[in-house]
Amino acid sequence: VVAGSLSLGELAERIGGSVVGDASRKIRDVATLGDAGPEEISFLTNPRYRSLAEQTRAGAVMVKPGTALPGRDLLVIAEPYLALVEVLEIFHPPARRRPGVHADARVDPSVVVGKDVEIGPFAVVEAGTRLGDRVSVRSGSVVGERCTIGDDTVLMPRVVVYPETSVGARCVLHSGVVLGGDGFGFATSQGVHHKIPQVGRVVVEDDVEIGANSAVDRATVGETVIGAGTKIDDLVMVAHGVRIGPGCLLVAQSGVAGSARVGSHVTLAGQSGLAGHVSVGDRSVVAAKTAVFDDKPAGSFVAGIPAIDNRRWKRAQSLVRRLPELRTEIRRLEVRIAKLERRLEPTQED
Amino acid sequence: VVAGSLSLGELAERIGGSVVGDASRKIRDVATLGDAGPEEISFLTNPRYRSLAEQTRAGAVMVKPGTALPGRDLLVIAEPYLALVEVLEIFHPPARRRPGVHADARVDPSVVVGKDVEIGPFAVVEAGTRLGDRVSVRSGSVVGERCTIGDDTVLMPRVVVYPETSVGARCVLHSGVVLGGDGFGFATSQGVHHKIPQVGRVVVEDDVEIGANSAVDRATVGETVIGAGTKIDDLVMVAHGVRIGPGCLLVAQSGVAGSARVGSHVTLAGQSGLAGHVSVGDRSVVAAKTAVFDDKPAGSFVAGIPAIDNRRWKRAQSLVRRLPELRTEIRRLEVRIAKLERRLEPTQED
Amino acid sequence: VVAGSLSLGELAERIGGSVVGDASRKIRDVATLGDAGPEEISFLTNPRYRSLAEQTRAGAVMVKPGTALPGRDLLVIAEPYLALVEVLEIFHPPARRRPGVHADARVDPSVVVGKDVEIGPFAVVEAGTRLGDRVSVRSGSVVGERCTIGDDTVLMPRVVVYPETSVGARCVLHSGVVLGGDGFGFATSQGVHHKIPQVGRVVVEDDVEIGANSAVDRATVGETVIGAGTKIDDLVMVAHGVRIGPGCLLVAQSGVAGSARVGSHVTLAGQSGLAGHVSVGDRSVVAAKTAVFDDKPAGSFVAGIPAIDNRRWKRAQSLVRRLPELRTEIRRLEVRIAKLERRLEPTQED
Repeated sequence: VVAGSLSLGELAERIGGSVVGDASRKIRDVATLGDAGPEEISFLTNPRYRSLAEQTRAGAVMVKPGTALPGRDLLVIAEPYLALVEVLEIFHPPARRRPGVHADARVDPSVVVGKDVEIGPFAVVEAGTRLGDRVSVRSGSVVGERCTIGDDTVLMPRVVVYPETSVGARCVLHSGVVLGGDGFGFATSQGVHHKIPQVGRVVVEDDVEIGANSAVDRATVGETVIGAGTKIDDLVMVAHGVRIGPGCLLVAQSGVAGSARVGSHVTLAGQSGLAGHVSVGDRSVVAAKTAVFDDKPAGSFVAGIPAIDNRRWKRAQSLVRRLPELRTEIRRLEVRIAKLERRLEPTQED
Repeated sequence: VVAGSLSLGELAERIGGSVVGDASRKIRDVATLGDAGPEEISFLTNPRYRSLAEQTRAGAVMVKPGTALPGRDLLVIAEPYLALVEVLEIFHPPARRRPGVHADARVDPSVVVGKDVEIGPFAVVEAGTRLGDRVSVRSGSVVGERCTIGDDTVLMPRVVVYPETSVGARCVLHSGVVLGGDGFGFATSQGVHHKIPQVGRVVVEDDVEIGANSAVDRATVGETVIGAGTKIDDLVMVAHGVRIGPGCLLVAQSGVAGSARVGSHVTLAGQSGLAGHVSVGDRSVVAAKTAVFDDKPAGSFVAGIPAIDNRRWKRAQSLVRRLPELRTEIRRLEVRIAKLERRLEPTQED
Repeated sequence: VVAGSLSLGELAERIGGSVVGDASRKIRDVATLGDAGPEEISFLTNPRYRSLAEQTRAGAVMVKPGTALPGRDLLVIAEPYLALVEVLEIFHPPARRRPGVHADARVDPSVVVGKDVEIGPFAVVEAGTRLGDRVSVRSGSVVGERCTIGDDTVLMPRVVVYPETSVGARCVLHSGVVLGGDGFGFATSQGVHHKIPQVGRVVVEDDVEIGANSAVDRATVGETVIGAGTKIDDLVMVAHGVRIGPGCLLVAQSGVAGSARVGSHVTLAGQSGLAGHVSVGDRSVVAAKTAVFDDKPAGSFVAGIPAIDNRRWKRAQSLVRRLPELRTEIRRLEVRIAKLERRLEPTQED
């Protein structure tokens, strides 16, 4: 935590990098290449922004080893994106916590409350629930009966956790998240959809973050599981009985249908979807807008509706775009064949 | 409602099935094929899981007539998926209700409150609204002015119902649902979007369930209608002036644009969408990820962007995948034609 | 504001149109062509509904100059869609406001509260925030620390505004909106996703409307900006560091990934998406379901996954549909070529 500024040299030392240029330069904050001024450090992590980096007014730029930006002070570091985490934490220490249960929170007397828990106004925590140490339940959030919330987990304002849900330690649930709503399960007979009681639950493991207005449904029976260290973006939907492995990324507006299985370190890009009961193996990448309708082995990189190998999909799509020309080509071949046929006709008559 | 366990024979009797194997076996609960133990019954409804059924540790398995699982105790029943509803209700009776208005709920004195209504802490019910018998308005939900909520309907925590909305009997609205928000209607003149007052309302008929964080907008004038017995999943969007018929299924993240008409018993699969003003006939199925841009008659099964007949879409997509090979084929034909043309040239010169 | 009814002539005068037919006819309200009765005026803005207009029971119909509807009383006006705004405002004056801070709202003493502000029960406004004149913060909404909310802006029930957010004047935020949640930014090293502190903020300019359950994330550093007069529908996602220009329309369930740039008066149709870092120029239209993966110049009209020129996309898709026939054509050409080749073989042997 700093008050005021650090020299570029001090900053390099704290994050384990080296300076190219003026190590005494004062740095007060972090900003984007476009916004930064002479007392701010910026970062070049995406080669797309190289020309911005050449023109930036930033006092210094964090770059990978081997990056040249003539005339600029550089902080050279092996993983600038990771270093950004540290530098941001130096200049923006997390807001101080305010432990205590607000007088306007309604916490059932049977709730087991850990040390230094923070519960905001109009939050509700129902009977039989356990809150670990330093848990935050912010304004207007509702935690149902018989839930478990692990140490250091934060529920931002207006989260709803349905009964029996288990959330691990160090999780962040953003506003509008709903965990444990009923799965979409109906037994249809003669046009009537009979609700299948959804008596399973949701288990969110440690170090999971879930974005605004995302929803994870409880299992019909058994568990819907979000693996440790998985990060979920805004407006994502995870259906009943799904199992997501550890270390996955589910990008905004993606969805996973009932009983699907997702391995570890899988990326579901924005607006992609998995059909019910499919399985996607470890370290796979599902491209944006893709729909996975059948199982994909570990290490897959798929795209398209339905999902196929990403490179094949790219080649196919570049041909789809040229279908009008391809059809013209076919028409021209037909003309040439017809001409050949006409020419050969007289030969036959000979 | 049971305390403890039932014999497999007693269970069969209660749901109208028959036992193959040991009718005296004790059953205490329901579980998935993968999770079940010897005192639990499981179910085989999807042939995909047959090998799991052969290996399950479940004490018994519910199956359709004609299903053989050698060495296993079976509960044979015509509709095992429907039977699952009954068996789950036997082992998991619904939570007991707690009628009463919480001291921290704000209910306008003009609200007509039915018998045995349950209103949770920090819920708000505004002037001129009627709540039927046994309605639940859970923690933090807000019901606006002049609404009607039918008997036995449940609003889970943090639902918002805008003024003038009508919700039928036996509906379930999950957390984060918003009914009656303004339709997206603007009259654009010289680049300025002038808001068109949205003075219509939302009507949700009986036996409708709506999943977490879904939104149904009020009509500009007139009504947006969700038909009786229709079930809506999470994160679904129904726009202003839409009419959804009875018995439909709107799966997660699907969307219906303004003034569209959806018949009865239509399925909109996950992440599908209907353009404004289109109509989709009774019993149609719109496949996942599909975009319907024009009217579809009753009984349609459509897929693709834009939506076409599902079988044609499947055939077309399998060819899209093979476009690189198709282009190679065309190139080879061109070579063969050129060769033929060269051969015929001397003939001409003769 | 009217009590009761107006004559068609009076109505025409108030909105600057002219009457064809009986100017003395009494009009009491507005309704759709299908629902309207003899004391209601309807409107024909979409040619699709012409036959409905011919059969309507409406007392009068608003139409563009040059529209003939024999036997009907018409209110002729240059922009009937814009006139609808005025007519609706005449018959449906906005609900009266009820300034005042509810006893059950929790407003930090440091909050600067403008004139005639309305704060509902269970709303929370945190330290250091400024609320302009006539701002409404309805039931259960939460406004974090150090925010600014401009004059006449309305937060419907259960909106969440994270700390440091700035919202302009005359905005409408519908229920479930979340502004300023953390961007989805992680630095991944050896399979672990390290959270990048999201220390930027969200700036919503004047006259913006945001629909139910939409989310706009704060920038990692700097600002996520929604331009003046832009209208956002329900369940839309705007990621960290995005800049949306003025006068745009973001239709339901569309999404814009991190750091993308959207010009002025751009339309993103329903369920469309923009990849991270792309830019879409002024006055562009992105069709429904489209995925934009690279930059598009001003005035683009694009469709498809990936997005290409809309006309080319339409032609290509009509050929995709006919790929089975195209393949048959190719097969037939091959047969004809083979026949020609066989015929020429003996010639060679001669």
